[in-house]
Amino acid sequence: MKATVLVRPKAGILDPQGEAVQSGLGHLGFVVRKAHVGRLVELELDTTDREQARAAVAKMCDQLIANPLIESYEITLEGDA
Amino acid sequence: MKATVLVRPKAGILDPQGEAVQSGLGHLGFVVRKAHVGRLVELELDTTDREQARAAVAKMCDQLIANPLIESYEITLEGDA
Repeated sequence: MKATVLVRPKAGILDPQGEAVQSGLGHLGFVVRKAHVGRLVELELDTTDREQARAAVAKMCDQLIANPLIESYEITLEGDA
Repeated sequence: MKATVLVRPKAGILDPQGEAVQSGLGHLGFVVRKAHVGRLVELELDTTDREQARAAVAKMCDQLIANPLIESYEITLEGDA
């Protein structure tokens, strides 16, 4: 089963990459009110059990993929609405 | 209008971050068949015209957000199905 994780900087946490994108776009003449940069992690899992997959990916996020102090994550499984 | 851009390494292009995530997860005892790491860019645009927004974001991707040689991008606008 394929799982997609979106990792975002938490609100109030500095987002230097987002600021760089916003200012870079401004220099190119694009007007953007805000820009935020996070990570996209796509995983291919062996399990076909959705509950099990979701729980495993949440553990992976807490332990390695995201830094829970400063980042939030959102998990989507293949076939989620 | 809010736009979300997912930037992925193109197929066949080295993805060292993905390999690091896969091997790191393996060391933690998680079995993952494959892992790919890309970027998530969220933009807040001034325009409310969807066609215009989509075209502008595609230009931003080509010029700054993605490296078209080695990365592909996927644009989603707020309200897209």
